[in-house]
Amino acid sequence: MNIGIDLGGTNIAAGLVDDNYKLVDKISTPTGRERHYSEIVKDMAKLCDELVEKNGLKKEDIKKIGIGSPGTIDCKNGVVVYSNNIRWDNVPLADELKKYYNIPISVANDANAAAFGEYLVNGEGSDNFVAITLGTGVGSGYIFKQQVFTGSNGAAMEAGHIPLIFGGVQCTCGNEGCWETYASVTGLIRQTKEAIAKHPDSVMAKAEKVSGKTAFAAAKEGDEAGLKVVDTYIDYVAAGVAALINIFAPEVFVIGGGISNEGDYLLNPLKEKVKKYTYCKAFGLPKIKIATLKNDAGIIGAAFI
Amino acid sequence: MNIGIDLGGTNIAAGLVDDNYKLVDKISTPTGRERHYSEIVKDMAKLCDELVEKNGLKKEDIKKIGIGSPGTIDCKNGVVVYSNNIRWDNVPLADELKKYYNIPISVANDANAAAFGEYLVNGEGSDNFVAITLGTGVGSGYIFKQQVFTGSNGAAMEAGHIPLIFGGVQCTCGNEGCWETYASVTGLIRQTKEAIAKHPDSVMAKAEKVSGKTAFAAAKEGDEAGLKVVDTYIDYVAAGVAALINIFAPEVFVIGGGISNEGDYLLNPLKEKVKKYTYCKAFGLPKIKIATLKNDAGIIGAAFI
Repeated sequence: MNIGIDLGGTNIAAGLVDDNYKLVDKISTPTGRERHYSEIVKDMAKLCDELVEKNGLKKEDIKKIGIGSPGTIDCKNGVVVYSNNIRWDNVPLADELKKYYNIPISVANDANAAAFGEYLVNGEGSDNFVAITLGTGVGSGYIFKQQVFTGSNGAAMEAGHIPLIFGGVQCTCGNEGCWETYASVTGLIRQTKEAIAKHPDSVMAKAEKVSGKTAFAAAKEGDEAGLKVVDTYIDYVAAGVAALINIFAPEVFVIGGGISNEGDYLLNPLKEKVKKYTYCKAFGLPKIKIATLKNDAGIIGAAFI
Repeated sequence: MNIGIDLGGTNIAAGLVDDNYKLVDKISTPTGRERHYSEIVKDMAKLCDELVEKNGLKKEDIKKIGIGSPGTIDCKNGVVVYSNNIRWDNVPLADELKKYYNIPISVANDANAAAFGEYLVNGEGSDNFVAITLGTGVGSGYIFKQQVFTGSNGAAMEAGHIPLIFGGVQCTCGNEGCWETYASVTGLIRQTKEAIAKHPDSVMAKAEKVSGKTAFAAAKEGDEAGLKVVDTYIDYVAAGVAALINIFAPEVFVIGGGISNEGDYLLNPLKEKVKKYTYCKAFGLPKIKIATLKNDAGIIGAAFI
């Protein structure tokens, strides 16, 4: 049995994962991110203890612990080099957790851990796998020859920040027109609100609170403005997916995050658009699939990185 | 001694390359691309014979021959799967050349071969290297752990076709707004012509024929419209370079192609702009350098792939 830990800005989630990449049990505790890292790691160890006890195991049954953390990670040394989210600089997460569990401990970027989880379960053992998440931002990970690709410094695969419309909508990163400003849930909500302002008679205008589901729900009712928003949004997603296919020529491409809950309603038109936008049409598309692990991807991936 | 062959639409160039990646001799012959591939390969073998003879070598002194070919390549089997340029489908280049030289023969995409040549000479032995060429189009190659990255099907690294301004200028690939429509020589010439139309008093208007050098020359004379064209063009280049850094986090990034002849006049402002556009600023930039091998990069790279 391995343990995967998903360190978030709000909660720390820890899960027991068996050798078939099945999540056996999961528990969590608030992060309290303003605390010293040693306190946070102590809570991680407590979660591990609890998982062990609760599941009738002994500490020795745990072979490995992996942590998915926000920020830029030095995977070799298990150090969080920099995290904007938890405001950490050079935090030796692996060494600190080793004080409680003296077994192999790995640290990876949380988006990479989630991508690796999807790879283990949905990657079909391919040597060339891309996963993205369409959430608050656009996350991405690339698995090459069974290994998470991190570049020379751990900062690779910030695909949310390739340009889609250079000079376009302001991004949180300081640039304008990054892919994530158009393809994230945040982007979709903005596009939905703009459409409501233009078409106050649209079904979308009746939504109490505009969310990433509003336009999709309206589109499914045949609302014209809603259909237009969804079509344009999927176009934006497709252009970035095609860019990643042009760069990596992957075998399998998995799409997760909140928007992926739309399933085939997203996937079918997306595939058509991606086909149109990819450069090399001779080989057809990689397998493009909807992620299946949802919030557990990070735990499962971390447990085996 | 190895031999590298650069198969172009117009000429076949072959070069003798020593173990220090030095081009010792280079000869060429017209491609005659309308002919059957067996005729073209026969000419390749003749070029090899001539290089051997001319340099006082024996056939046995040649340890390996590498071919850089346009199109999508099955590197494992030395087959040109598809080439738009020479209009080939599934041509077994390596097997055909083995009829003349029964030694290891490799086939690679020409842009990848050129990137690998630059890697050998300017890559500083890094595990993570990107090269682009700003020419008629924008070519790109990625060298990971000393090996040319080709993706799952040989079609990877078409970075010229990531979006820069989605829905923008029509690209030869059928899409609109690809990076190469803005960052290639072709793009720069278009931008220069547009500026001349707007500013007929500009120094650029005096050019007999507008080329990729026109705006740079005007800018160096202090011509305001020329300065603006160059600044905007470098902005376009920088946005794509930053995108590739966001994806690969390389150690070394080499820029070749016609525009790279501008040297520091391109490189210095480019670095400033790339710094602004890259997502992860904590690590600083990779080493960004001007390519040095020019047209020989493909031969040198092919000889050692």
